[in-house]
Amino acid sequence: MVGTKRKTIIPKAAVARILFTTGAKRVSADGVDAFTEILETITLEIGHQAARIASHSGRKTVQEGDIHLAVKK
Amino acid sequence: MVGTKRKTIIPKAAVARILFTTGAKRVSADGVDAFTEILETITLEIGHQAARIASHSGRKTVQEGDIHLAVKK
Repeated sequence: MVGTKRKTIIPKAAVARILFTTGAKRVSADGVDAFTEILETITLEIGHQAARIASHSGRKTVQEGDIHLAVKK
Repeated sequence: MVGTKRKTIIPKAAVARILFTTGAKRVSADGVDAFTEILETITLEIGHQAARIASHSGRKTVQEGDIHLAVKK
């Protein structure tokens, strides 16, 4: 598709794959879009939190513990 | 890598990309693994719920509304 730009960070194909894994027989395009958007919101929120926790601990590297702590918050 | 099998549905590269987007300067391999695992748990849970809602409504197709409802639960 010429002139179209990717707007999501999470690949939609992966999201559709997950939906099929969970037992969906068919998935509407709107459904995939909505799911991708929601996952991205959750993901970015956790990511921001984890980055903040790492930098608060004086680290430049985000580690496993930062992620777990970010999820709890 | 011969003999290794992909264990996650969500590609780890995408997860790492998201972490960098959120301001992480470096990310440990453990951090990416942990984040991927957590996202997958959340995602599969929402997916299962959405598939159940669609099938409960007598549809084979998972639609946008199913996803939104699944997220609320």
